[in-house]
Amino acid sequence: MNKVTISPGSARGPVDHDVRDQIIVAATEHFRLYGYEKTTVSDLAKAIGFSKAYIYKFFESKQAIGELICANCLREIEMDVTKAIEGADHPPEKLRRMFKTGVESSLRLFFEDRKLYDIAASAATENWETARAYEGRIKAILLDILRQGREKEDFERKTPLDETVMAIYLVMRPYLNPLLLQHNFDSMDDAPTQLSSLVLRSLSP
Amino acid sequence: MNKVTISPGSARGPVDHDVRDQIIVAATEHFRLYGYEKTTVSDLAKAIGFSKAYIYKFFESKQAIGELICANCLREIEMDVTKAIEGADHPPEKLRRMFKTGVESSLRLFFEDRKLYDIAASAATENWETARAYEGRIKAILLDILRQGREKEDFERKTPLDETVMAIYLVMRPYLNPLLLQHNFDSMDDAPTQLSSLVLRSLSP
Repeated sequence: MNKVTISPGSARGPVDHDVRDQIIVAATEHFRLYGYEKTTVSDLAKAIGFSKAYIYKFFESKQAIGELICANCLREIEMDVTKAIEGADHPPEKLRRMFKTGVESSLRLFFEDRKLYDIAASAATENWETARAYEGRIKAILLDILRQGREKEDFERKTPLDETVMAIYLVMRPYLNPLLLQHNFDSMDDAPTQLSSLVLRSLSP
Repeated sequence: MNKVTISPGSARGPVDHDVRDQIIVAATEHFRLYGYEKTTVSDLAKAIGFSKAYIYKFFESKQAIGELICANCLREIEMDVTKAIEGADHPPEKLRRMFKTGVESSLRLFFEDRKLYDIAASAATENWETARAYEGRIKAILLDILRQGREKEDFERKTPLDETVMAIYLVMRPYLNPLLLQHNFDSMDDAPTQLSSLVLRSLSP
C-alpha cells in the first residue's frame, strides 16, 4: 500500500496538524466501519496507507486517536445542548431542554452510527480523561442553570448548590452515559420528560 | 454418571415438587460455578445425574429453570426491602430505606456471587416475565409508601400518583436493574442517599 508523500522529517507546524487531522478523519471512518475495539494501529496504518511507525509519530497509542475522536463526538453533544439551552428564556425550561437534547444527541451520536458507540463505551468503561472532562462540563452547565434559577427565584435555595448539581447529574447520567443509555431504550420516549418534571418539583422554592 | 432412583413414571404430586426442587438446587449451584449463559441443559443433566429427557419432564427449557432461580433471587431482594420499610415509621424514611436496601441487596445477590448476575442479566435483557413481575411489585411498594405519605401530608398531592410512581421508579431503576447497576459501582456509596434526598425534595408538600 502506498505511503503518503509528506516527509516524516518535516518541521512541526501546520503540516503536522494536517497529518493529525488526516489520521483522525481516516480513523473515524475506519472505526465507523469496523469498530474501535477490533481495530489495531496496524489495521489503521494499512487502511490509511501510512506506516505504523509514522502514525506513532503523531499519536502515542490507539487510545490517543480514540480519545480525540471521542472528544469531538462529546463536544458535538455539548454544543447541541448549549444551543438548546440558549433558545430558552427561563431556567426551568433550560433544564428540560438540557435533558431532552442531551439524550437525543447522545442517541444519535452513539447509536445511530452504532460503531461510534464502541469508542464512547471504551471511554466510559476505562474512565478516559475525555469522558471525565465531559462529565465536568455537563455539571458546569447544570450549575449555571441552577444559579440562574436561584437568582430569579425559580428554584429553592436551601439545599447546598453542589449537592443539587450532583443529584441532578445522577438523575441524568443513565441517559448520557453510553453504557447505561443502551439499556434505557425502552423508557427513552417518556423518561426525560418524567424525570425533568420530578427534578423541577424537587427544585421548587 | 448415575441416574437418580425416582421413577420417571411416578404420579404428579409431592414427589414431583421434590424433584423440581432438587433440580433447582442443583442448577443454582451449577450456574453459580459455571455461569448461566455457558451452561446447556445437557451439562446440567450430566452434573445432576439425571437424563436430559427427565429434566425436560419438569422444565420445558433452560430458561424455565433460570426463571425460577431468578424469581427466588428477586423475591429475596423484595423481602429485604419490605423488611427494611416495616422498620420505619414515617413514609419519607420508608422511601430512603427502600432505595438503600434495594441497592445493597441487589449488589449482594447479583455481584457478590458474580455468577448469579448472569441469570439476572438475561432476565433483564430478554425481559423475562419474572423481571417484569418484579418491576411491577417494586412499583406497588412505591405506590403504597406514596399513598401513606399523602395521607399523612408528608408528601404533596398535586402530581398524579401514577406519574410520581413512574418517575421515582425511573430514578431507582439504574440501581436495581443488574445491567445498569454494574456501571454504577463508582457512585454506589453516595448515590442512593443523594437521589433519595432529591426525590424527597420533589415530594415535599
